[in-house]
Amino acid sequence: MSTGFFGDIAKIKYEGPDSDNPFAFKHYNPDEVVLGKPLKDHLRFAVAYWHSLAWEGGDPFGGRTFERPWHDGGMDKAKIKADVAFELFTLLGAPYYCFHDADVRPEGANFAESTKNLNEIVDYFAKKQEETGMKLLWGTANLFTHRRFMSGASTNPDPEVFAYSAATIKTCMDATMKLGGENYVLWGGREGYETLLNTDMGREFDQMARMLHMVVEYKHKIGFKGAILVEPKPQEPSKHQYDYDVATVYGFLQKHGLEKEVKMNIEQGHAILAGHTFEHELALARTLGIFGSIDMNRNDYQSGWDTDQFPNNVPEMALAYLEVLKAGGFTTGGTNFDAKVRRQSIDPADLLHGHIGGMDACARGLKAAARMLEDGALQKPLDERYAGWNSDVAKKMLAGEMTLSDIAAMVEKEDINPQPKSGRQEYLENIVNKYV
Amino acid sequence: MSTGFFGDIAKIKYEGPDSDNPFAFKHYNPDEVVLGKPLKDHLRFAVAYWHSLAWEGGDPFGGRTFERPWHDGGMDKAKIKADVAFELFTLLGAPYYCFHDADVRPEGANFAESTKNLNEIVDYFAKKQEETGMKLLWGTANLFTHRRFMSGASTNPDPEVFAYSAATIKTCMDATMKLGGENYVLWGGREGYETLLNTDMGREFDQMARMLHMVVEYKHKIGFKGAILVEPKPQEPSKHQYDYDVATVYGFLQKHGLEKEVKMNIEQGHAILAGHTFEHELALARTLGIFGSIDMNRNDYQSGWDTDQFPNNVPEMALAYLEVLKAGGFTTGGTNFDAKVRRQSIDPADLLHGHIGGMDACARGLKAAARMLEDGALQKPLDERYAGWNSDVAKKMLAGEMTLSDIAAMVEKEDINPQPKSGRQEYLENIVNKYV
Amino acid sequence: MSTGFFGDIAKIKYEGPDSDNPFAFKHYNPDEVVLGKPLKDHLRFAVAYWHSLAWEGGDPFGGRTFERPWHDGGMDKAKIKADVAFELFTLLGAPYYCFHDADVRPEGANFAESTKNLNEIVDYFAKKQEETGMKLLWGTANLFTHRRFMSGASTNPDPEVFAYSAATIKTCMDATMKLGGENYVLWGGREGYETLLNTDMGREFDQMARMLHMVVEYKHKIGFKGAILVEPKPQEPSKHQYDYDVATVYGFLQKHGLEKEVKMNIEQGHAILAGHTFEHELALARTLGIFGSIDMNRNDYQSGWDTDQFPNNVPEMALAYLEVLKAGGFTTGGTNFDAKVRRQSIDPADLLHGHIGGMDACARGLKAAARMLEDGALQKPLDERYAGWNSDVAKKMLAGEMTLSDIAAMVEKEDINPQPKSGRQEYLENIVNKYV
Amino acid sequence: MSTGFFGDIAKIKYEGPDSDNPFAFKHYNPDEVVLGKPLKDHLRFAVAYWHSLAWEGGDPFGGRTFERPWHDGGMDKAKIKADVAFELFTLLGAPYYCFHDADVRPEGANFAESTKNLNEIVDYFAKKQEETGMKLLWGTANLFTHRRFMSGASTNPDPEVFAYSAATIKTCMDATMKLGGENYVLWGGREGYETLLNTDMGREFDQMARMLHMVVEYKHKIGFKGAILVEPKPQEPSKHQYDYDVATVYGFLQKHGLEKEVKMNIEQGHAILAGHTFEHELALARTLGIFGSIDMNRNDYQSGWDTDQFPNNVPEMALAYLEVLKAGGFTTGGTNFDAKVRRQSIDPADLLHGHIGGMDACARGLKAAARMLEDGALQKPLDERYAGWNSDVAKKMLAGEMTLSDIAAMVEKEDINPQPKSGRQEYLENIVNKYV
Repeated sequence: MSTGFFGDIAKIKYEGPDSDNPFAFKHYNPDEVVLGKPLKDHLRFAVAYWHSLAWEGGDPFGGRTFERPWHDGGMDKAKIKADVAFELFTLLGAPYYCFHDADVRPEGANFAESTKNLNEIVDYFAKKQEETGMKLLWGTANLFTHRRFMSGASTNPDPEVFAYSAATIKTCMDATMKLGGENYVLWGGREGYETLLNTDMGREFDQMARMLHMVVEYKHKIGFKGAILVEPKPQEPSKHQYDYDVATVYGFLQKHGLEKEVKMNIEQGHAILAGHTFEHELALARTLGIFGSIDMNRNDYQSGWDTDQFPNNVPEMALAYLEVLKAGGFTTGGTNFDAKVRRQSIDPADLLHGHIGGMDACARGLKAAARMLEDGALQKPLDERYAGWNSDVAKKMLAGEMTLSDIAAMVEKEDINPQPKSGRQEYLENIVNKYV
Repeated sequence: MSTGFFGDIAKIKYEGPDSDNPFAFKHYNPDEVVLGKPLKDHLRFAVAYWHSLAWEGGDPFGGRTFERPWHDGGMDKAKIKADVAFELFTLLGAPYYCFHDADVRPEGANFAESTKNLNEIVDYFAKKQEETGMKLLWGTANLFTHRRFMSGASTNPDPEVFAYSAATIKTCMDATMKLGGENYVLWGGREGYETLLNTDMGREFDQMARMLHMVVEYKHKIGFKGAILVEPKPQEPSKHQYDYDVATVYGFLQKHGLEKEVKMNIEQGHAILAGHTFEHELALARTLGIFGSIDMNRNDYQSGWDTDQFPNNVPEMALAYLEVLKAGGFTTGGTNFDAKVRRQSIDPADLLHGHIGGMDACARGLKAAARMLEDGALQKPLDERYAGWNSDVAKKMLAGEMTLSDIAAMVEKEDINPQPKSGRQEYLENIVNKYV
Repeated sequence: MSTGFFGDIAKIKYEGPDSDNPFAFKHYNPDEVVLGKPLKDHLRFAVAYWHSLAWEGGDPFGGRTFERPWHDGGMDKAKIKADVAFELFTLLGAPYYCFHDADVRPEGANFAESTKNLNEIVDYFAKKQEETGMKLLWGTANLFTHRRFMSGASTNPDPEVFAYSAATIKTCMDATMKLGGENYVLWGGREGYETLLNTDMGREFDQMARMLHMVVEYKHKIGFKGAILVEPKPQEPSKHQYDYDVATVYGFLQKHGLEKEVKMNIEQGHAILAGHTFEHELALARTLGIFGSIDMNRNDYQSGWDTDQFPNNVPEMALAYLEVLKAGGFTTGGTNFDAKVRRQSIDPADLLHGHIGGMDACARGLKAAARMLEDGALQKPLDERYAGWNSDVAKKMLAGEMTLSDIAAMVEKEDINPQPKSGRQEYLENIVNKYV
Repeated sequence: MSTGFFGDIAKIKYEGPDSDNPFAFKHYNPDEVVLGKPLKDHLRFAVAYWHSLAWEGGDPFGGRTFERPWHDGGMDKAKIKADVAFELFTLLGAPYYCFHDADVRPEGANFAESTKNLNEIVDYFAKKQEETGMKLLWGTANLFTHRRFMSGASTNPDPEVFAYSAATIKTCMDATMKLGGENYVLWGGREGYETLLNTDMGREFDQMARMLHMVVEYKHKIGFKGAILVEPKPQEPSKHQYDYDVATVYGFLQKHGLEKEVKMNIEQGHAILAGHTFEHELALARTLGIFGSIDMNRNDYQSGWDTDQFPNNVPEMALAYLEVLKAGGFTTGGTNFDAKVRRQSIDPADLLHGHIGGMDACARGLKAAARMLEDGALQKPLDERYAGWNSDVAKKMLAGEMTLSDIAAMVEKEDINPQPKSGRQEYLENIVNKYV
């Protein structure tokens, strides 16, 4: 039974690259088998409740542009929003969704009431999931929008905020567990500082570590089988965000003995803001063994904030999915569209165009990456480049069987005079362009 | 006996803030006692051989602008350069200097000859040190200028380059030891990648870790008492540099069990390029217990590369030295001017103006920081801000004596509803401005 | 009669640099005479109604943090806001203020009602001005917050929005005239585009030029004696903003014959976002004869958006006021604090700390600049640097009395071989540091 | 007669998208007719002598990596370089090339000798052009590499440098004329400043204007039929470059009455550094009637300098060529590869891979753009979006037949209350993705 919000738009079908139907997939055929697995199981698309349902189109210089029937309301409106949400997921055939507590339930007058509201909506979602077959990729707590969190959640100078945050996380982990969520995500939206002048960084690190320990303990206590994921982001909204990038979070996890318990949810836009490419962050997480899931979007390289646009640059996406595939693909993770239509895209149809374009672009990227992998197109030149390390002496050096002195003596004795070899970047870029 | 290079400029003296003499210090009085210690022992200034003696004034769009009598030469020219260098140090009264091998000796036809050249110049420096009283703050190996290092030193795909790099580091550590250097620095100028397409990041991390282990082992073997320092830098010259920032290097050190053996040499310009303030990087290193030394300069915030200008913004420098002082001040470290006069500053006098201005600005910054510390100007408001954590329940939460469930129950039962408190940023900024 | 909003804080007085009173000026003594004029007449401070009264402390990741008694209201609340506003101006002794229509009046149900509301508040302001002696530096129309302007005001694809914008500007010019405003400002907050895919740039330029012509015509028609000022800004909120920087606006004005009618209102933060220093934009406007007024604030160099912080870096501000003084100082213009306290600075006292610190920093900057000017500290070296252009042949070349061929013949005949001369940047920077 | 430099690589042929031959075009079929014209006449490819022949692979942290037989030499080496250059052009089938004087001739001991050297090489080029059929797209003078230009060419404080620059430009215009060049380009590599402290901007603008006037006069005097093109670039190598971007240069041209005489040579990398997209700069030049030619390359969005990589992102290039086609295509202009292979790409083959990949990517981009144009894919939605401006009253407003008062009266009387309409960005992006 339709809400009517999307008018007469029917379920989006795959029609192939020649279709001119703006409400059809041209590249995302969910059942197409790639590397032995259907595309839908490779990509595991999720819709982000906050951007597509909760966001109202505001920016720092202007207010709401979207007029949705569920704004400004209590529980009734929250249910209308849920109805449209599951209708959107169903139209798209996105098997997953993701949410923060604050996206889905009205804020209560106090903690108890907010929790009650959350639980009521979780029951409603559970029913919706059953009806539609949609699933929860991950849940998370919004510990950054309400003014109580303005100076941090776990890292707040006020221990009452720490306590309130801990309590809220508990309710969100419970909700995620109940809805069969496959991961639980922590994004530290206000974990950082505006100015060092009022900040005791060491103390705040201890607070943050304590919270993460409690989350991991609680996961085990309740038997949650999903992954705990931290989402790195630099410089926004706080002037400095502690979970700056994958490398930074990894150092933090190690220091606190959590590197086996926590993985990364990596976002394209956050990678860009940290000065990295998306594929760098993915490759690093893969290398460190902490790759979990992705927040797929596109950041305007020339805007200094998180623009969260729907992705559309296929050559860039192919390189990103290449890293996902090299990491073995998603296990509990997936492709969450942490993307919003532009604030001028006020029509319900725009929500569909954004997702359709994004899903098509992801499918093209993944298929190109899969072909590169199958052909060994990049692996062969890579193996050649490092082939020198297969020699015995090279292995000895790397294994720690030679000291600086040993090596220096060898260089002098054998008059080693290494000659540079071409890195062949343009040749490799041309290979990639054959696939995209 | 003067080289004549600086004409009739005499040793720079302190003349106080009202002096109009461009060849006098207005704020740096080496013997002025601050927090119980003379300024010279707080600041431990060092001149960077590469920028002030070796650099020729080129940039990507133009060649040499400086015409120095020691360019384009062999060992004779290298000694003329050394004579002028020690004259510069002496004029400035900078007690320290720093160098790379390639700054000070002619490149030989092979490794053996380069080593022989280095050793010859090290003997020359030793004599100069004795004559002038100047000391070596740190030595380092240049593993990035020669084309053999174009694809990395320890992270090169070619093990011969790894070997050559190891051998070179050994000779530079020997040189540093012989000259009584107080630290040995590693800056991985080409440790990184241009494109992931030709890069096996995990393998390169292993190579880099092996090299660092060998350096630490060699330090202990030869009884070098100084510190081993890594200098973080992002994005230049490689598209991605592995030692991106303090947090990244810390994660790397931990992973390889080196976080007790290696400290940080932190540069203002590198901090800026990584998206951090200088004081952030200093505060982080202090918090993590790995603060070592600083490379003092100033980066143009609007240029996307390392501009290495002499520092001159006193309010910013006060915040940096505040972190140095909070870290307990320098032990083996110091203030190395990794700064170069602009390429249009072609006169010998310009070398002096750059350093004089930088030393004066550092002295003003440090003195302001010391006064802030003495007055507890920032500490008192900080203690107030976190005072809530002194309560018993807050201590219990932080000590791990409460679980998420315990805390949630408490929040619900006590109806905890935290109220935000002002962060007072403008108030604190006004306090700082009273001191600078 | 106090509103009570600021508690018992009394009028801010000048107490000199040694005062520890956070509610006193340490450097801004309004009556201190500098270059023959009291400081208050040099600086002509204005408080920005939008940041200090209307802004609620939200950011893209969080809602209102300030709880002010005048939020969420109609005309009654607007008058409470006005009462507090004029109390703030009076406490600070800021002689001026600036506003947008939307800051001061409730939005009406339609244009007529909004206009009626504006007129009512203008009458209220007029009375307040008389009571307090405060004056209006400039008025402006907010053509970017309401959703009707989401795709531009004068550059909207819908001519109805153009018409609505024109009508709104008329009411704001009328209001400014009535209140004795000394300037009228246009900031094209939505004049630009999100994507070229839906934009006809040439057509939108024509629309924007037409609007500006109508503004100038209306100014003359109603006998407004103040200046019409355009405020340049790049990249935010639109992906591309047409009034990118001073140079861009100047080109636009020339193309449409308006360069004698319109001047610039230049903001520090906007300069930074365009890749320029503040002093560059000021010097350029001065050189082109279109300098008008300044929006004083400070942008975090490492945030990619307009952070609008209160200024506090005195060395930078000295260089900015040096340009203002070289331009002859303000005539109709002034120093408008387009600055907001941080969203964590939620106390009324914070509003005062922000302005007090800013006014002190401006006073220090201006006084330093004045001393540099009086001493000719920078002018003398500048004159020397260009002295070669005083020769007869140089004058002939510049006057157009020689052709390329003439000059080539001269260079060849006289074997001209120019030798570079030092730019002396460090020397000059040291001179500046003597004054700040 | 081959130089042997490229080994046995034969002339690059078109083999179609399925070819695995790295030395074949997959998309650039020179004779393929698109929009009624062969691709080669649309694209008018040119090879940049400086990057592909003169550049030695250095960067700010390392020296020469390329070992070419023509480095370090006099006129003989210059001719070997020319032989290889024309061989490269011929292998690629690039019909055009571009050069600076300093790329092609040895620097002489003085102006006369440099001129003599240039003339000798021009004669050699003329013969080569005749033999190979290659043509000159544009010539230009290098007024930034030699130390005499360190403080500017036309904007130098020393009039002797102005004179030397003028004389040099004359010789380069003569050379361009003699070789049948289709354009003459001015890039002001050092026209700008390092610090305002030593700069008189107004005076330098006058000098720059005078030089440009002389160039235009000389063009007419010698009957040069090509276009005079200025190439905008911001922030590198000078801290501020006067020819910042298209809008800035347009303002300068207008101020000096040159906007009908001078057009733009627009580079992707320079657009990016100025904070613009490439297509923005192209669209702006088209709109202003000053579009001339393009320097095609790709800038790393995350490097803060001009990386001059070969282009490879087809979706971005399609949008750029769409602007070129909307401007009517090239007349005298063309697609100059102002791109260099990476400094690790040291093999002769890499030079070919770079160009082959770039030419293929350009061909794909242009063909996609042509199909979009033919289908009116973007034009139809654009026309609809602005359709409101076809009404009589809208036309009257735009034509200047209504005043602010007239319009305000109309808005009030008719109670105009404009409703926002979707900008449809995602819909349009999906359309573009159908073509790329």
